[in-house]
Amino acid sequence: MALEDYFAAFTERDWEVESVDGAVRIAIVGVGGFARNRALPGIESGTYCETTVLVSGSPDRSADVAESFGVEHVIDYDDFLAGAVEDAYDAVYVATPNALHGEYAVAAAERGKHVICEKPLETTVDDAREIVDACREADVTLMTAYRLQCEPTVRRTRELVRDGVVGDVVQIHGSFSHPLLEHARPDSWRLDDDLAGGGALVDLGVYPLNTTRYLLDCDPVSVYACTHSLDDAFAAVDEHVAFQLTFPTATTASCTASFNAHASSQLQLVGTDGMISISSPFGGIVPHKMVVESGDMRMEYTGEPVDEVREEFDYFGYCVLTGTEPEPDGDDGVADIRVIEAAYESAVQSQSVALDFEYDSR
Amino acid sequence: MALEDYFAAFTERDWEVESVDGAVRIAIVGVGGFARNRALPGIESGTYCETTVLVSGSPDRSADVAESFGVEHVIDYDDFLAGAVEDAYDAVYVATPNALHGEYAVAAAERGKHVICEKPLETTVDDAREIVDACREADVTLMTAYRLQCEPTVRRTRELVRDGVVGDVVQIHGSFSHPLLEHARPDSWRLDDDLAGGGALVDLGVYPLNTTRYLLDCDPVSVYACTHSLDDAFAAVDEHVAFQLTFPTATTASCTASFNAHASSQLQLVGTDGMISISSPFGGIVPHKMVVESGDMRMEYTGEPVDEVREEFDYFGYCVLTGTEPEPDGDDGVADIRVIEAAYESAVQSQSVALDFEYDSR
Repeated sequence: MALEDYFAAFTERDWEVESVDGAVRIAIVGVGGFARNRALPGIESGTYCETTVLVSGSPDRSADVAESFGVEHVIDYDDFLAGAVEDAYDAVYVATPNALHGEYAVAAAERGKHVICEKPLETTVDDAREIVDACREADVTLMTAYRLQCEPTVRRTRELVRDGVVGDVVQIHGSFSHPLLEHARPDSWRLDDDLAGGGALVDLGVYPLNTTRYLLDCDPVSVYACTHSLDDAFAAVDEHVAFQLTFPTATTASCTASFNAHASSQLQLVGTDGMISISSPFGGIVPHKMVVESGDMRMEYTGEPVDEVREEFDYFGYCVLTGTEPEPDGDDGVADIRVIEAAYESAVQSQSVALDFEYDSR
Repeated sequence: MALEDYFAAFTERDWEVESVDGAVRIAIVGVGGFARNRALPGIESGTYCETTVLVSGSPDRSADVAESFGVEHVIDYDDFLAGAVEDAYDAVYVATPNALHGEYAVAAAERGKHVICEKPLETTVDDAREIVDACREADVTLMTAYRLQCEPTVRRTRELVRDGVVGDVVQIHGSFSHPLLEHARPDSWRLDDDLAGGGALVDLGVYPLNTTRYLLDCDPVSVYACTHSLDDAFAAVDEHVAFQLTFPTATTASCTASFNAHASSQLQLVGTDGMISISSPFGGIVPHKMVVESGDMRMEYTGEPVDEVREEFDYFGYCVLTGTEPEPDGDDGVADIRVIEAAYESAVQSQSVALDFEYDSR
């Protein structure tokens, strides 16, 4: 395939292979900033999902947003757990603080509802596995909300890697920084270790981590990590993290994430025969410029900004409606938490921690 | 200072503060590809040095290159050590395999000749210190040939960092890959651990390592490294390396180098208030595009390609002629070898190795 062919249908939904009618009715559990600013508009602009219920800690305060998106029901968490309006939704989108994912995801699964759950799936591997087990038991779809896996630059990059356009991938660099306190209050749950399960690594580092595993289509054999917290606001969690993954193929990924740095993200893969670089891969609805080098050829491409949250919900809806197992499934979510737990262990021990995915029960 | 002012005199030699007459006469010791293709033309196009002697393992084969650059004397290594034509040069440029740097640099210093020595200064800290001591004893100038420190994008970046344009530097990514076997024979000394003192880390990784130390103006407190050799050609040295440095300020640098990957280099600094990215910083005479973000401001700059080897020799000549101590001095060279030795130790132990520059005797 010629290099330009990868870009000819840049935003093509290669996963959309059969025609489908209907839409999955979603209950959004946890109406925070991301739900209001990204998920609700994303679902509204998409095809295969519609929001029918908001589950909020303060239904009164969520009434306006419900009205503006035409959402019929607003209930609180207790009502949700008690089964209120359960006929009004087919699936839940869990967007609560991380440590609460399990409770709501499992409750939904037990009612036969499909689940799309924000990453990280939970704060510990054990709690994440409970979600996976509950969804398997109930035979419902479980997707971990890795929006990047639905984003065109990342999908095209995977194709390029898969087709050997850059040869064997040798070294990856990935970074994601976001000045949290410019957008969140100091009492944000993201700064509470119990609720978040970690800091910059969990909230931002998971992007280069998951994207690297997705692009290489394999799991790391070891991780080394270094965490730092300088500012008092970040006393309970890692403010900055730098981690290095090694894959079975000897590919390494050098990743960083920061809660307290200029907003920026980068992803670069260097292979034996070429290079792929994506500017701002993790940054949201902004132009993601791609540079691809293959042998002596160099190509630059800036696609139209794509709302990967719309893509993500449409992909989830499509999977539910067609009975397709989502690629970012529960095991994918568990795998990242295994790496994150090992990374934190590494940071304490100042040594690399081995990961053995080979003999995992998954 | 306004952001654009840093670029107004992009290629300005800020080190050139007094007017100087004359030129330092250089004996090039080791006439390999870099000496022929970069050093000789660089010196010829510059102001403060001239090449008067070539010291070659095969003087016959070097006669042509001597003639084309108007170099009067070509002698062999034994003649050099015996003091042949010693009145014909004021300084030596040592560009032999790394393990031989010490022998020729020390011999030159003992004859009262100034020394510019390729990086790494030697293959071990002890051998490198012998060069430093010999030059100090003889009261001659010693410069480690870190051409990047004479390169405009790197010098401007240091000014931007120093002036706080990006706030405190939080995370750095640096990479340099070069497919060695496309340009060198399998019997290259660079693949011989005894002669080179290491592989990709020593030959390429030293660029992001030294540049990072230069830009932050401090030394790391620890290093973690991972090395891999897959191809038989690289059995004796590291084919690929990924290493992570931590600085006293908690800044981290995530660096990679590879002897067997697509030619590529990148450097990115993310700070609390901005970001600086340089494309192809280590790649030679190519356009080095810089992107600087500071708060909400973004600026792109592509300077004219600058021959940093010419700059480097002119800087060395200027230092010798004015009695200025070069910034990339012997201690700078020793410091990188200390980090490299610790990195190799780390790779064996799979744990980070602490570095204590504070109590060093330098």
